[in-house]
Amino acid sequence: MSDAVPAKEAAALDAADGLALKRAEFDLDDRVVYLDGNSLGAPPRAVAGRLADVVGREWGRLGIRSWEESGWWAAPERVGDRVAALVGAGPGQVVVGDSTSVNVFKAVVAAVRLAERDGDGRDEILVDAATFPTDGYIARSAARMTGCRIRPVDAADMAREAGPRTAVALVNHVDYRTGRLHDLPAVTAAVRAAGARTVWDLCHSAGALPVHLDAGGADFAVGCTYKYLNGGPGAPAFLYVRRALQDRFDSPLPGWNSHADPFAMDPAYAPADGAARGRVGTPEILSLLALDAALDVWDGVDLAAVRAKSLALTDFFLRCVEAYVPQGRVESVTPQAHAERGSQVSLRCAAGPAGGAGEVMAELVRRGVVGDFRRPDVLRFGFTPLYTRFADAERAARVLADVLADVGEGAGR
Amino acid sequence: MSDAVPAKEAAALDAADGLALKRAEFDLDDRVVYLDGNSLGAPPRAVAGRLADVVGREWGRLGIRSWEESGWWAAPERVGDRVAALVGAGPGQVVVGDSTSVNVFKAVVAAVRLAERDGDGRDEILVDAATFPTDGYIARSAARMTGCRIRPVDAADMAREAGPRTAVALVNHVDYRTGRLHDLPAVTAAVRAAGARTVWDLCHSAGALPVHLDAGGADFAVGCTYKYLNGGPGAPAFLYVRRALQDRFDSPLPGWNSHADPFAMDPAYAPADGAARGRVGTPEILSLLALDAALDVWDGVDLAAVRAKSLALTDFFLRCVEAYVPQGRVESVTPQAHAERGSQVSLRCAAGPAGGAGEVMAELVRRGVVGDFRRPDVLRFGFTPLYTRFADAERAARVLADVLADVGEGAGR
Repeated sequence: MSDAVPAKEAAALDAADGLALKRAEFDLDDRVVYLDGNSLGAPPRAVAGRLADVVGREWGRLGIRSWEESGWWAAPERVGDRVAALVGAGPGQVVVGDSTSVNVFKAVVAAVRLAERDGDGRDEILVDAATFPTDGYIARSAARMTGCRIRPVDAADMAREAGPRTAVALVNHVDYRTGRLHDLPAVTAAVRAAGARTVWDLCHSAGALPVHLDAGGADFAVGCTYKYLNGGPGAPAFLYVRRALQDRFDSPLPGWNSHADPFAMDPAYAPADGAARGRVGTPEILSLLALDAALDVWDGVDLAAVRAKSLALTDFFLRCVEAYVPQGRVESVTPQAHAERGSQVSLRCAAGPAGGAGEVMAELVRRGVVGDFRRPDVLRFGFTPLYTRFADAERAARVLADVLADVGEGAGR
Repeated sequence: MSDAVPAKEAAALDAADGLALKRAEFDLDDRVVYLDGNSLGAPPRAVAGRLADVVGREWGRLGIRSWEESGWWAAPERVGDRVAALVGAGPGQVVVGDSTSVNVFKAVVAAVRLAERDGDGRDEILVDAATFPTDGYIARSAARMTGCRIRPVDAADMAREAGPRTAVALVNHVDYRTGRLHDLPAVTAAVRAAGARTVWDLCHSAGALPVHLDAGGADFAVGCTYKYLNGGPGAPAFLYVRRALQDRFDSPLPGWNSHADPFAMDPAYAPADGAARGRVGTPEILSLLALDAALDVWDGVDLAAVRAKSLALTDFFLRCVEAYVPQGRVESVTPQAHAERGSQVSLRCAAGPAGGAGEVMAELVRRGVVGDFRRPDVLRFGFTPLYTRFADAERAARVLADVLADVGEGAGR
């Protein structure tokens, strides 16, 4: 296939893209192909103006009154409802705040406590063996503090590994390294059939594809908002607690923001009802309201269309790589099957004469194609359907082929 | 004393104020007397521009590279060192991130674990009986998860109550309700003499007065940055771990940001050295860098001068109240003794014919004097030496007298 064919095809695909107009709602540098939205989403244009108003008027003029008058106090639940709509959750079950790690702690400890209440001696926490590390570290701490043990198992085996000792299974919906998507409803059903509960980590699926928390029967879920939800660097994470469990949700971090009547300043703790029970301390309002503004880009967006474009983009990128890159230089570790693919493509890139995957990614970035590198040998390319174009996918594959050729030549072939 | 006397005195005091020029560095509405900096500090002018740059250039143009190139990754320690300088701590011991509540959890659990290592069977957590509630709620959770018991004692009695069973004493440096300042070095020494460790909550002292964490021998400290440090609504909190304890600091929230080599993505946890061990997940960068910009106002400020002005302001306000408000209408619950006073004045205000303290504060706010109300009957006025003027104190007392008179009349006297 000549270089002209994918470029022409990209132009045709972009012309037919029903989400193409969304790109204008983001502040992007058109000289750069930004394929790192799976690490840090690009800024929606609405954020800068909203932050200026929050600082200048809400903080500067209204000051302390903004906790009520500007809706700061209720923002974790209000923004939570906006996130809920993007992860298949009805209102009142998602709260935004804290980091993903802190929310993993709340959810795993709460799930273990539910098992303790059930009283059937379950003392095992299953953890996705390939998990993003923080989930494993925090789950181990939760195990230590609740007298449980940790057992790492492959996410693909989670359904059959859950057994009579299992209190909770902590699973990544999409693997951060390979981009593999796991079957949330099926795993959830199997874990529940074994009498255990699930905590889903949605960091790499929220905003990337339809997630069906309510319909899938998930018990708990957590996720970040700075990847496909574009909330800004370190934007606050979220916690989902299924409605049926809210009354029994027993948080290990019962800060004053989760009190039934916070301003009573009661020395005795009484938990709030609903999603607010997942709060802890005072939320970081500037980051939270930047996220709120960032979520405006989802107005009127159909997640099925997002998913269709995501799969078309990753399919197309893989075909471009096949067309441009000499066979054997890279190998996709992202599943071919659509049902098993998130919204990224990970290419294993063996070390060549002039360096390994780290050097290749550094050179890609220098040439205006921004993905990222995960040790030891993975090039990650994230595709954000709201702003990534097919032309970006084509250019990324073309520049990758150039870099791989030049890196080889640079070593004196 | 006629009304003219305090007003004249205020003008003279403001004219002689060595910190008076600092006020210009804040974005304040001159029509309002803002005495709520002990709840939410006013915005330093530098914040808006810095946030615009962080969103537009660092996030928008550099994107993911900003974690290194814009210093985002190291910001929790870097900003931590700036806070450290304001609370009497040498560099490398303070990290910024999470909420005060989450940091109380880390510190109290870590202190209990130190006692466990010591192996002398200490299983008691002393909590300031008048504590801001979240400290008590979180300490109780820490006790539950570590097999300890909680014993509330008056902060003034903490020194003599610490005993052979005590693992840790959690004390508020300044009482949020009364404004009473406790003696950090003396309490710390007494608790240490009893073989226990201290966790100081500096929410109402950091930035309000000199704090001597290192010199006073404090083991742990936490605090917020949105009061006298003016970091913005819900600005991230901080955690101090004394250098000598850092190697044994065993966090209950060992997220990936506290790993010795976070990007190794190692399934096994290995804690970082130094202050970074207190980190958990990805920091909320927008809120963190707003705080960073806000801290610029401290450049060249001598905390001894801040303390001197703080005491002069609260002394003067109390004298103005005495001059303007009929005897018996309000009563100060803030100690007269300078050594026992923070940077606020709390006035108990008995319910009058037309309403109680809540109604009085609401009317004060309507008339441009912003303090706050704490149930059941306390009017709180915070004095931030960097921007509060003596004229503000005089006006606040005068308007308070007017409101109290009108509220009485309004009821038909």
